[in-house]
Amino acid sequence: MDWGEEAARRLTKIAETASLPGPGVTRLPFTEEHRVAIGIITGWMEAAGLAVQMDAAGTLVGRREGPAGSKTLLIGSHQDSVPGGGAYDGIMGVALGCLALEAVKDRPLNVAVEVLAFADEEGVRFPTALMGPRVLAGTFDDGTLAMQDRDGVTLRDALAGFGGEPDALAQMKRRAEEIAGYLELHIEQGPVLEREDAALGLVTGICGIERLELRFTGSTGHAGTVPMEGRQDALVAAAGFVAEVPGMAREWDGLRATVGMLKVSPGAPNAIPDAVSLVLEVRSERDAERGAAVAEMGKRAAEIAERAGCGFEMAQTYQQPAVLCDPALSDVLARAGQGDLPTLPSGATHDASAMADLCPIAMLFVRCRDGVSHRPDEFASAADMGAAVDVLARALIAFDPA
Amino acid sequence: MDWGEEAARRLTKIAETASLPGPGVTRLPFTEEHRVAIGIITGWMEAAGLAVQMDAAGTLVGRREGPAGSKTLLIGSHQDSVPGGGAYDGIMGVALGCLALEAVKDRPLNVAVEVLAFADEEGVRFPTALMGPRVLAGTFDDGTLAMQDRDGVTLRDALAGFGGEPDALAQMKRRAEEIAGYLELHIEQGPVLEREDAALGLVTGICGIERLELRFTGSTGHAGTVPMEGRQDALVAAAGFVAEVPGMAREWDGLRATVGMLKVSPGAPNAIPDAVSLVLEVRSERDAERGAAVAEMGKRAAEIAERAGCGFEMAQTYQQPAVLCDPALSDVLARAGQGDLPTLPSGATHDASAMADLCPIAMLFVRCRDGVSHRPDEFASAADMGAAVDVLARALIAFDPA
Repeated sequence: MDWGEEAARRLTKIAETASLPGPGVTRLPFTEEHRVAIGIITGWMEAAGLAVQMDAAGTLVGRREGPAGSKTLLIGSHQDSVPGGGAYDGIMGVALGCLALEAVKDRPLNVAVEVLAFADEEGVRFPTALMGPRVLAGTFDDGTLAMQDRDGVTLRDALAGFGGEPDALAQMKRRAEEIAGYLELHIEQGPVLEREDAALGLVTGICGIERLELRFTGSTGHAGTVPMEGRQDALVAAAGFVAEVPGMAREWDGLRATVGMLKVSPGAPNAIPDAVSLVLEVRSERDAERGAAVAEMGKRAAEIAERAGCGFEMAQTYQQPAVLCDPALSDVLARAGQGDLPTLPSGATHDASAMADLCPIAMLFVRCRDGVSHRPDEFASAADMGAAVDVLARALIAFDPA
Repeated sequence: MDWGEEAARRLTKIAETASLPGPGVTRLPFTEEHRVAIGIITGWMEAAGLAVQMDAAGTLVGRREGPAGSKTLLIGSHQDSVPGGGAYDGIMGVALGCLALEAVKDRPLNVAVEVLAFADEEGVRFPTALMGPRVLAGTFDDGTLAMQDRDGVTLRDALAGFGGEPDALAQMKRRAEEIAGYLELHIEQGPVLEREDAALGLVTGICGIERLELRFTGSTGHAGTVPMEGRQDALVAAAGFVAEVPGMAREWDGLRATVGMLKVSPGAPNAIPDAVSLVLEVRSERDAERGAAVAEMGKRAAEIAERAGCGFEMAQTYQQPAVLCDPALSDVLARAGQGDLPTLPSGATHDASAMADLCPIAMLFVRCRDGVSHRPDEFASAADMGAAVDVLARALIAFDPA
């Protein structure tokens, strides 16, 4: 069997079940599309000889037993998409995990293996995400069950209506000593592997994320009657800062800093701006460097504001530490990749971020076309997916946690 | 009589009739507040011995006849305010005109004089303005009458319901040879006179205005997965331009350039901006310099966009030429001001802008506190207003168009 072509065929087919209305794939957790996906993924798992069941958090689990007393290696990703998303993000990792186990169906392994299809990683339907991996790691906050979707349906009711067991979540924590590790295959969602002409890449870690709200305050006035001299234009100050962000970010290796939102007040063509709020997001594999970069950026913003006669405030609104991939587990993938896998950080969060609280993690990225993700034109080639199945299958055969 | 104190008393009283609900003065054209104002202004005009009537455009006109065959000197400003505006913008010019004529009530003049209280200069209720002066100058576009306010009332119906005559507007054009000129007293709405410690200022001209929409286009992508190298961040490009605007504006004397609106797309904290639209407004007394400045700014924006790997477009969305004040008419005010009036351009549009199509114009600015206008705390002192009445009264006595 050509595992890459089979992956492409399966992903196209499951995408078609969640393609209406509108372009792209829309598969939110605990919906009819999710239920259809559960049915299809059950077929993938059974083709690999796995015993299938849905756990209390709505995660579909396909298990292959190992030798008596062996640990369990977990392989997972998520079934859900963003609205109007692509056919690869998340679901590809589930498909490739099943195919790798199908490829080694008749080979002895040193561990039990479970493929996990988590319900919700994107956090689109509810203002939370990662319930599946968090209950396994014992980090799930029960209060989250009261969160509502836009129709007022609580996460508790959505999960219960889907056949999950909200009241059983607290008992689902896995025992760390029984878990050998967690592997996740995912499309890169960035341009790095394409630039390096590589089908696959080994993830070194998942970047920590920090979001800050920066507020520049000046004085408004009539754009016609106030001379340029002595203006305190909050947008001129904010713009001076934004223009310097890329240069500052490049002072730290691999650090990414982005201003994606900016609001001008009062926001009229003939009014000098008296306030600008913007959101600065900084990501790095190294939390200390991220902290140092944020401190330097804040200092520079304050200088620019002062030079423009403006006030300045900065407040952190979100923070998530970096997670390192486990060197030993990553090495299993690297060897299976026959030494030619480039390494790269993951700038995005994954199910692996939450699984890292339970066990060692490792991730393999698959090249995506034009760095595009979360869009209908998201694409990974059959050849690249085939290469990923080969690496994962070799890793499964070689893996020995003892 | 202390004309300044009387002006303050009258402006406080008329403000109280338009102060509910909410803070500040809200007096839109052809409303109940406008009707109350008409009654009060009629009293001001009658106290100055003027014959009062409302014209077909809703302008209240108070006339003092002159010697047989004499020309008419017009003195005007507007009765309306912005929502939640101040007690001085517009209405002060009407009040001071009436008081100056009251001050010279028993003195012979060489001209007939009319005080004009225009209905609508702010253009808040309808998406147009300056109907009153435009009908006098013969530049009013009848199609404007079909414009609607937010309740769907047309300008035609609002005017007719107020006692105006929409169908008579086309016959209202004044004969230029009968008009000696148009004088307008107005609060400065800027900080210049306060900085120069001067109660009054002589306006040299009304700035031309140009608005341009600038659009920077790049490539979006995930803020975490796309390295800094090779990004095409539209906001970084736009910010580079905005930060340079004040420096470029200062290369032309008196020119004002402002970016008051800026929109980021897609506008999410974790998405690299792929498009930024902003509005650049440039004002100058000298149209040629404004044109040169805009050309230079467009060229610089294109350079900055190219350096950032972004596309760039610029389109003019509005243009209004500069209007020069008449040197001879201005000189009458200057002499009446006994030679110590500083000169300054008007960055804002006034009724005088439209009157310039009919006759020579001149304007006197009154210092306002902290440069504040269009706000409840807008303020001109009784002493400064008294000085303005004195200058206007002396100018009326001295004025001889022959």
